[in-house]
Amino acid sequence: MKIITSVNNSQVKAWSKLNTKKGRLKQGKYLLDGWHLVKEAIRTREPIETIMVQPDFKHLQEIEVPEGAGLIQITDNVVKHLSDTKHPQGVMAVVKIPEQQTIEPEDVNGAWLFMDNVQDPGNIGTMVRTADAAGFSGIVFGDGTADVYNPKIVRSMQGSQFHLKMVTAPLEPWIQAFKAQNKPVFGTELNPDARPYDQVGKHADFALIMGNEGNGMNKELLKQTSLNLYIPIIGKAESLNVAVAAGILMFQLKAN
Amino acid sequence: MKIITSVNNSQVKAWSKLNTKKGRLKQGKYLLDGWHLVKEAIRTREPIETIMVQPDFKHLQEIEVPEGAGLIQITDNVVKHLSDTKHPQGVMAVVKIPEQQTIEPEDVNGAWLFMDNVQDPGNIGTMVRTADAAGFSGIVFGDGTADVYNPKIVRSMQGSQFHLKMVTAPLEPWIQAFKAQNKPVFGTELNPDARPYDQVGKHADFALIMGNEGNGMNKELLKQTSLNLYIPIIGKAESLNVAVAAGILMFQLKAN
Repeated sequence: MKIITSVNNSQVKAWSKLNTKKGRLKQGKYLLDGWHLVKEAIRTREPIETIMVQPDFKHLQEIEVPEGAGLIQITDNVVKHLSDTKHPQGVMAVVKIPEQQTIEPEDVNGAWLFMDNVQDPGNIGTMVRTADAAGFSGIVFGDGTADVYNPKIVRSMQGSQFHLKMVTAPLEPWIQAFKAQNKPVFGTELNPDARPYDQVGKHADFALIMGNEGNGMNKELLKQTSLNLYIPIIGKAESLNVAVAAGILMFQLKAN
Repeated sequence: MKIITSVNNSQVKAWSKLNTKKGRLKQGKYLLDGWHLVKEAIRTREPIETIMVQPDFKHLQEIEVPEGAGLIQITDNVVKHLSDTKHPQGVMAVVKIPEQQTIEPEDVNGAWLFMDNVQDPGNIGTMVRTADAAGFSGIVFGDGTADVYNPKIVRSMQGSQFHLKMVTAPLEPWIQAFKAQNKPVFGTELNPDARPYDQVGKHADFALIMGNEGNGMNKELLKQTSLNLYIPIIGKAESLNVAVAAGILMFQLKAN
């Protein structure tokens, strides 16, 4: 097996650039970090290009390298250089970013989560993971929302990107297309005049829009929705964390 | 106004120790960091001992220093030394930790969140904030759960510790006391044989127990609950984030 020991190796330099949005766009790939993610990517037959392991990685024998993918040993210092985490597990993979141009709003079904300018990678990843758990079909990363394959988002999605359709696109055409098909598009706002979230029934085909952590949803988009929802705050907290609010709404709105 | 410019100042050394559990226990105080928290502590009349500000803090004129509290200027380097955040806002406060020995499970009302060995400070703080929003009355930090006044927890509670009763205690006597008063105690487990969470009605007086991120609730405690609940996973995610699960459960179970 090929061994790379230097962070100055040209391949390591190229991989390292996948930690930036620019690098991911240019190469059309992203990094998986950790055994859970690499194993799940193998299981769901993602287009893995290379798997990188430390020589003493304890699950080395369990790695079923997909056809066409490479397996390369990298030393401790290289793992640390590539990994965004404090305590890397000693296994990573380079995966091709799926083509998404073919996903059109007119052709999709089920429940969709639209993110409008959501900023925090942990919140975004947790929302994707929760959407997966709630049985959603896909996510649209709207304008201003952090990049899907940001390492922190990838970590907190915990592999749910393999289970859902992932689209990066402006939300407006998606909102219009859903409405044209008579699928409700629910906006959210911290406004007691909006409709309480538990009074709109359960739905099979719909979209839920979550907004920015500090400022909420874009005002123009709020005007385009079918209905805007509100989670009543009973106590004295000023608001809910956006990922918690998204979880409450997704599990409330989705028909099983 | 007194100005402290050195991190070697004895008062700064004492404050700095409040970033550790040992220091907080010894001094019986903790640190608030940022304008939102300091302002909320003033508004809710917390026992503030000292407010520390940078000379150029933009809300300096708005600070209503409580009677008996000190106001001290600290320089940039001192703020950076004391703050746990990357971008401190230039205002902090030292607050006395409330006496909690007087809160007995026999004497409380309403909905309570019990935390069993929850580890991540961000999850813990978010759960406290959500409990506040859902109209809960108090929180019990059970064995193994990170310390309430950990700086990261304080940051993510966003002041909700001022609105709720906060107790650190073993959970078993609290479970027994609630049950003795015929208040349901709901455990949680990732087990499809447990009761679906949306089939147990809404309650005014009850407890909800959330467990460890990786291992769930303690097996012995699961046997002592009134009933254990499960959030059905519809998609392919293995689990929900504990703070998201807690939010879904608290809003589902709490009678308004």
